[in-house]
Amino acid sequence: MLTVNAIAAPSATEPLVRTTVERRDVGPADVLIEIAYAGICHSDIHTVRAEWGQVPYPLTVGHEIVGHVTEIGSEVTRYAVGDRVGVGCMVNSCRECENCKAGQEQYCLAGNTGTYAAVDRDGTITQGGYSTHIVVDQDFVLRVPESIPVEKAAPLLCAGITTYSPLAHWNAGPGKRVAVVGMGGLGHMAVKIAAAMGADVTVLSQTLGKKEDGLAFGAGDYHATSDPATFEKLKNSFDLIINTVSAPIDMRAYLGLLRLDGTLVSVGAPPEPLPVQVFTLFNNRRSFAGSSIGGIAETQEMLDFCAERGIAPEVEIIDAEAVNEAYERVLKSDVRYRFVIDIDSLRK
Amino acid sequence: MLTVNAIAAPSATEPLVRTTVERRDVGPADVLIEIAYAGICHSDIHTVRAEWGQVPYPLTVGHEIVGHVTEIGSEVTRYAVGDRVGVGCMVNSCRECENCKAGQEQYCLAGNTGTYAAVDRDGTITQGGYSTHIVVDQDFVLRVPESIPVEKAAPLLCAGITTYSPLAHWNAGPGKRVAVVGMGGLGHMAVKIAAAMGADVTVLSQTLGKKEDGLAFGAGDYHATSDPATFEKLKNSFDLIINTVSAPIDMRAYLGLLRLDGTLVSVGAPPEPLPVQVFTLFNNRRSFAGSSIGGIAETQEMLDFCAERGIAPEVEIIDAEAVNEAYERVLKSDVRYRFVIDIDSLRK
Repeated sequence: MLTVNAIAAPSATEPLVRTTVERRDVGPADVLIEIAYAGICHSDIHTVRAEWGQVPYPLTVGHEIVGHVTEIGSEVTRYAVGDRVGVGCMVNSCRECENCKAGQEQYCLAGNTGTYAAVDRDGTITQGGYSTHIVVDQDFVLRVPESIPVEKAAPLLCAGITTYSPLAHWNAGPGKRVAVVGMGGLGHMAVKIAAAMGADVTVLSQTLGKKEDGLAFGAGDYHATSDPATFEKLKNSFDLIINTVSAPIDMRAYLGLLRLDGTLVSVGAPPEPLPVQVFTLFNNRRSFAGSSIGGIAETQEMLDFCAERGIAPEVEIIDAEAVNEAYERVLKSDVRYRFVIDIDSLRK
Repeated sequence: MLTVNAIAAPSATEPLVRTTVERRDVGPADVLIEIAYAGICHSDIHTVRAEWGQVPYPLTVGHEIVGHVTEIGSEVTRYAVGDRVGVGCMVNSCRECENCKAGQEQYCLAGNTGTYAAVDRDGTITQGGYSTHIVVDQDFVLRVPESIPVEKAAPLLCAGITTYSPLAHWNAGPGKRVAVVGMGGLGHMAVKIAAAMGADVTVLSQTLGKKEDGLAFGAGDYHATSDPATFEKLKNSFDLIINTVSAPIDMRAYLGLLRLDGTLVSVGAPPEPLPVQVFTLFNNRRSFAGSSIGGIAETQEMLDFCAERGIAPEVEIIDAEAVNEAYERVLKSDVRYRFVIDIDSLRK
């Protein structure tokens, strides 16, 4: 067992504090990763504050992890010491259900093992990436291409794959009109990726405050959702809408923006159900769908795609002691566009 | 102008009565159809009772129409006098929008012209098929193959196409597991058509009362939705669910039945919105969609498919004077499976 530095939430209401967590011994199929950077995802905040259900405390969150391999198990073939690697939102799955066999481990019918707050195969609770090291089965480790700046790579492991997967699944590409709702951590990646795929991208953001950024990221158009005229002007327009907003949205208004056979895909979710008018779905044969991260093979595909196209998140690097302040700023949408913790600051 | 016998609703609360309606003179592109049979669709009842919004009275409903051509306009090329033809839920559309140009006139962005209760191009209100004759533009007339028994053909024009279209669009076929919710007029056609397409069909009906019929129509399995065990037993099972029930359903329970990339398509709609948990859509990357009738070309394809496969609705033939009683029986689900009015009874 390895005891390593970390930041953890002692409870749902207290700030995160410096502490240590235990990592299991490196098993035959495991790799030990020395973490370099860990992204701050809004899910981390929902989780530590128990907004998505009770969690076991103390808890270390973080599922956007980049570092390098410092030790490998006896049966590890996919990685060698020194490799630059990443870990995303899951560290295991049943590997036997039809979804796992289809390479869609994120939809494991037994439930995938989350990178934090989940029961691991040894019965312990998984602890996330706000720490100096992590031990992960090689099958849930990703190769992070060297051409992606290491300090920017971490958010790809959640924000990147969460937006890439539905864009790829619903065929964003040339001739397709894609709207991205929300220009936060996920939204700004959706814009960059959809534009790189060749789609016509429109941003739908509450205000025009980030318009210049949106256009620089590859959007062709940018509209404020606070202006009701937006919904009139753009009705029947989009083949695909990626909704990155976790707060409830006016489903009738947003679904009304879809053209024939269009799909609105939510990648963020409010805990409360959203009221959907079936008559709104009848028009244009519309669909309302959900999408959750992506499979391991697809996550590798996304990393390689981003490396090849020169796509990376916009990040603000912080030290570990700034994490509580960063949380407050995330809640105020005061970040462009993702906080990343420099884990070196945890080694002292 | 032609004055023809009909049955009409004088108001939202009175029974239907014998009367006459006016049909326009046969224009250059029109055909005059002598109606032989008209199906009774649940939509007819919703409409005359103003449950879907106010309608102009007196109103003649009926959008499952079969008969033969008795007169054609000077420019009509597609039909000749004596042809056996049908008319479904729409009699016109803008023909210029992207959906019309894509052959999806049912999704006309200007709104298609309903067979009844809509404003026709001459400013009059369209009157439906519970009458002896109707005048329709040739482009919205279907050819009804002679091998389909004439007294059974009418329900194909709404119940048939409404179920065929989503089954075809979402690729029901060999290896696909399809559930049909509800075994009424639409549901029994969905079972027959999905089975003929080669899908594995399961019926989800409130009780097992129609199980024998369902299996005879081609279902391989039949479950009662009144038994909560059904939803446990069948979770993560279906690629496609066709929901023919207009009453609100428990969305979480039904969406839970979808396997990876499965879609629940509603073809019936309650006026109230349905609450959808986005987390339920995250699992298995599920979709919730709507589908409305079908395009004209697709309706012809459906008629030809049914003729070729020997598929026809189960009908109970009634005379015109029995229509009010039939409505009451429809509301009690006391029909196997579609009432069809013998329009000869209106000629006296």
